[in-house]
Amino acid sequence: MPTIFTRIIKGEIPSHKVYEDDLVYAFLDINPLSRGHTLVVPKEEKVTLDQLGDEAAAALGRVMPRLCRAVMKATGATAYNILQNNGTLAHQAVPHVHFHIIPRFDEPDRSGLTIDWEPYKLEGSEGAALAKSIAAAL
Amino acid sequence: MPTIFTRIIKGEIPSHKVYEDDLVYAFLDINPLSRGHTLVVPKEEKVTLDQLGDEAAAALGRVMPRLCRAVMKATGATAYNILQNNGTLAHQAVPHVHFHIIPRFDEPDRSGLTIDWEPYKLEGSEGAALAKSIAAAL
Repeated sequence: MPTIFTRIIKGEIPSHKVYEDDLVYAFLDINPLSRGHTLVVPKEEKVTLDQLGDEAAAALGRVMPRLCRAVMKATGATAYNILQNNGTLAHQAVPHVHFHIIPRFDEPDRSGLTIDWEPYKLEGSEGAALAKSIAAAL
Repeated sequence: MPTIFTRIIKGEIPSHKVYEDDLVYAFLDINPLSRGHTLVVPKEEKVTLDQLGDEAAAALGRVMPRLCRAVMKATGATAYNILQNNGTLAHQAVPHVHFHIIPRFDEPDRSGLTIDWEPYKLEGSEGAALAKSIAAAL
């Protein structure tokens, strides 16, 4: 069954489209966090980023700076967040890879993404072992 | 003056490296939000994503799925967030483009990124005008 994003890409559901090429489709989020909140979607129908093919991932990466420039120019934003969620536990709502471009404004409301950042300190020995095991998994 | 990430890439400052190619360098965040929190950095020294060249952006996009697979495999995470901040107002701390891969765990602590999501409803006429002006700025 096609995802809602595939139906949008195919034109079966209307969207406020801002960009399209062979591999990528971008449109406004209809439930935005701020003015200009844009979704960038690969046409390849994969649930999470780790499943996405190299060609689609490269095409998506390549067009992001250009889309960011256009969103900033059109909205006047000078700061923004890129967010891409994978898995329900990580707040993914639609099971089709999508990158959010979320302009950030210095306003009380509709100002963009709010992040709660609570880091801890990575111990040297833990870091060395973990980096080794990630590199080995590549 | 080189950024701290350029000094890490050059090996002047040690890091827990997980991946490197001609255009991209990835290593563990030493102040992680969760186990496996990884930073993916273009070697091209640009402050924000909108400034990044096409080649670096495509290379970075292409390698992301592979890095995500490795981080998930090594940590056992099944969910994760990708975050990339641009501008101080958007929580950017180091003035050199970097993507966070943040595994998400179902745990009380060190569980990953916490997001506060407060959307509003985009009105049709506002959306149409905004999409038109972003597309025109491309």
